[in-house]
Amino acid sequence: MSVRIVDIREITKPISSPIRNAYIDFTKMTTSLVAVVTDVVRDGRRVVGYGFNSNGRYGQGGLIRERFASRLLEADPKTLLDASGDNIDPDKAWAVLMSNEKPGGHGERSVAVGTIDMAIWDAVAKIAGKPLFRLLAERHNRKADPRVFVYAAGGYYYPGKDNSALRAEMRGYLDRGYNVVKMKIGGASLAEDRARIEAVLKEIGSQAQLAVDANGRFDLETAIAYAKMLRDYPLFWYEEAGDPLDYHLQASLAEFYPGPMATGENLFSHHDARNLIRYGGMRPDRDWLQFDCALSYGLCEYLRTLDVLKTHGWSPSRCIPHGGHQMSLNIAAGLGLGGNESYPDLFQPYGGFPDGVRVESGHITMPDLPGIGFEGKADLYREMKALAA
Amino acid sequence: MSVRIVDIREITKPISSPIRNAYIDFTKMTTSLVAVVTDVVRDGRRVVGYGFNSNGRYGQGGLIRERFASRLLEADPKTLLDASGDNIDPDKAWAVLMSNEKPGGHGERSVAVGTIDMAIWDAVAKIAGKPLFRLLAERHNRKADPRVFVYAAGGYYYPGKDNSALRAEMRGYLDRGYNVVKMKIGGASLAEDRARIEAVLKEIGSQAQLAVDANGRFDLETAIAYAKMLRDYPLFWYEEAGDPLDYHLQASLAEFYPGPMATGENLFSHHDARNLIRYGGMRPDRDWLQFDCALSYGLCEYLRTLDVLKTHGWSPSRCIPHGGHQMSLNIAAGLGLGGNESYPDLFQPYGGFPDGVRVESGHITMPDLPGIGFEGKADLYREMKALAA
Repeated sequence: MSVRIVDIREITKPISSPIRNAYIDFTKMTTSLVAVVTDVVRDGRRVVGYGFNSNGRYGQGGLIRERFASRLLEADPKTLLDASGDNIDPDKAWAVLMSNEKPGGHGERSVAVGTIDMAIWDAVAKIAGKPLFRLLAERHNRKADPRVFVYAAGGYYYPGKDNSALRAEMRGYLDRGYNVVKMKIGGASLAEDRARIEAVLKEIGSQAQLAVDANGRFDLETAIAYAKMLRDYPLFWYEEAGDPLDYHLQASLAEFYPGPMATGENLFSHHDARNLIRYGGMRPDRDWLQFDCALSYGLCEYLRTLDVLKTHGWSPSRCIPHGGHQMSLNIAAGLGLGGNESYPDLFQPYGGFPDGVRVESGHITMPDLPGIGFEGKADLYREMKALAA
Repeated sequence: MSVRIVDIREITKPISSPIRNAYIDFTKMTTSLVAVVTDVVRDGRRVVGYGFNSNGRYGQGGLIRERFASRLLEADPKTLLDASGDNIDPDKAWAVLMSNEKPGGHGERSVAVGTIDMAIWDAVAKIAGKPLFRLLAERHNRKADPRVFVYAAGGYYYPGKDNSALRAEMRGYLDRGYNVVKMKIGGASLAEDRARIEAVLKEIGSQAQLAVDANGRFDLETAIAYAKMLRDYPLFWYEEAGDPLDYHLQASLAEFYPGPMATGENLFSHHDARNLIRYGGMRPDRDWLQFDCALSYGLCEYLRTLDVLKTHGWSPSRCIPHGGHQMSLNIAAGLGLGGNESYPDLFQPYGGFPDGVRVESGHITMPDLPGIGFEGKADLYREMKALAA
C-alpha cells in the first residue's frame, strides 16, 4: 500500500475577537489552517489530516510555505513510514521538518511545526481508522479515558464591560455545565481586580471554582502584591503571574502564595519546559502546567516534554494545556492529562468540541471519531474541507 | 523638518556556503535584506537605513511582510520621533513593532525585528550624520574606541577536507592579520577532533590562539568528555558545548573545564540572556557572551541585555557577538564590547568590513562612515541599493 503525503496546504485565517488580555488585544489575531493531503483512501475518501495553531500566536503562513512544507514534500516518502510501512511515522516526519534547524530560538517555527504535526497525527489516526486518543493510549500501553475535565476560560476586559456583564458571562458558563471558570487579571488596578474577583465568586458561589490569569504581565513586586490579595480567596489557580521566562519570579512567588499556580502556555519546547521545572519552583502536588502542543512543535515534542516531567517526578495529570483545541483533548483522553482549556464563546469555529458534545459536571466525553475528530464539528470542518478541496 | 518612514522593503537572499557545522548544513541558508526608506535627505540623497539578519537563522520575509513592516508604516509618524522631533526614536519604533506580541517565544520574530531594528539604527545615525558607533558612545556617555578586536571563524567540516587543508585555512587567517582563529568540533569523533586541534595548534604556534565551537551538539556526558580532552590545550575558548537552553549542562561543565567558555548566540532575548547568567554558571572573569543583536530583536533589546549583565556584575567587555556583521562592530566600538566575530571567507557580501579596512594584530579600525557603514563595502552596498531603488 502506498502512503504518501501528496500536498500540504496552508491558509491564514482571522481568529479575531473583540477582547484584550493584560498583554495584547485580539482584533488582529490570525491562525494557520493546514491540510496534509495523502494518497490513502479510507471509507471511499482520500485521507486528509488537518491542523491549526491554537490561538494567541499568529498564523505561520510564511514559514510553512517558505520553509517547512517543502521539506516534507521533497522527502523520499519511504523515509517517512513506520516499521509496518502502512502508515506515516510522525517522529520521522518531525525529524524531516526540523532538518537544518539550529537549536534554541523556540518561537514562531514552533507554531509552524506544531500545526503541521497536528495535521500529520490527524492523518495517522485516520489511516489507522481510530480516534487519536485511542491510538495514543494503545501506543503508550494506557487505558484511554474519554471523559476529560474542561474549564471555561473567559472574563476578558471587554470594552465598556462592567462587573454585572462579567457575572452574567460566568453564570452562562455554569449554565452550560462548567464547574471551573477563569477570568483575566492584571488589565486593571489591583483594587478593581479584587472587586471583579469578589463579584464573580459571589455569582458562582459553591457551584464552581475560579481561576485567574495575569498573562505574564507582572513584575516581581506586583506579582507578590497580587499573591497577597489572591490568597484571601479559594482560587482554582493563579496563572502566569510574570514573564514566562522569569523562572526566578515564579519560584519567589511560591513563598507568598500557598495555593495552586499555573503556567507554561508561552514555553514552546521541552527545553523551556525543563527549565521551568528545574528553576521555577513549581510544586508537583498542586501546580499546573499549560504547555500547548500546537504552539510548541506538536505532539512529537510534547511527548518529550512529558518525558521531562516524568524524570522530574511530575504526573501527566498535572498538565491542563492552553488553547482549547481538540488535539489536546485527544492527548488528555489518551495519555492521562488533567484536562483541557475551553473558550465557550471565543475563537470559533476553531476551538471547542464536536457537535453534540456537552459539558456535564465540568467534563466532556470524547466521541469515537477517526483522527482528531474535526469532522464532527460542522462549522470547523467546512473551513477545513474548503482548504483541501 | 519631516522625518517619516515612507517604505520598508524586504528581499530574502541566499547566504549559502558549502559548509556544515556540527548541527546543520548551510547550503540552503538565507538572509533577509531590509531597507527602511525615509523622507529625509542628507548630502542630496534620500536617507535609507539597511539591515540584514546576520547568518545561521533563515530570512524572515514572511514575518516582516505579513506582520511587522505594516505596524511601522501604519503608525502615526509623530509617535516614532525622539524628543527633538528631528530623528526617529528607535525605542519608540521598537515598541510599535512589538505591539500585540505576547511574551515568550523568542525565535524567528526576534530575527525579523532585529533586522528592521538594524535598518532603523542605520537610518537614525545617518540622519544624525554620524557613524553609529560614535552616536552610541555619545548617548551612553562613553568614549568611542574605533579599534575593535576581531577573530577569524572558520574550520568547518568541508566535504573531503583533511587536516592539511584545515591548516592552510588557518594559516590564511594569520596571513590576513588575525591572532585568534576558531574551528568547529563535534562533527567528528573526539579522537578526530583532537587530531584536528593538534594540527591547527602546530600550524599557528605562538602566532595565534585557537577557539573551538561545538554548536550546541553535545549532551552532558559528551560535553564533559570533550572538556577533559580540551583542557590539555591552551584554548581561547570552548564554545556552545550543549543545547543553548541547557543551563544546567553549562553550569556543570565549569567543574571540568577551568579555561574560558563561550555561549549565547542562540539566545534571542534579554530574558534568555538573564537565564544564562542566573543559571548557567558562567564566570565573569573569563567566560564570553555571544548574543547577536541581529537575531535577538536588535540593538534596543541588546541594550536591555547589557543592563542585565551590568546588574549581575558583568562588563560589556565580556561580550564578543556572533555574526560578523558591521552592526556589532559599531556596538563594540561605541559601547565597549570585547570584540566581534568575523568570517573571512564566508557569508559574502554580508559579513566583513568596509573596503580598505585591514586586520592588524587581530584588530580593525572603524572608518568614520555615517550610519553602520554599509556604504563603505561596495559589494554589499550594491545589493542594498538595488533593494531601495
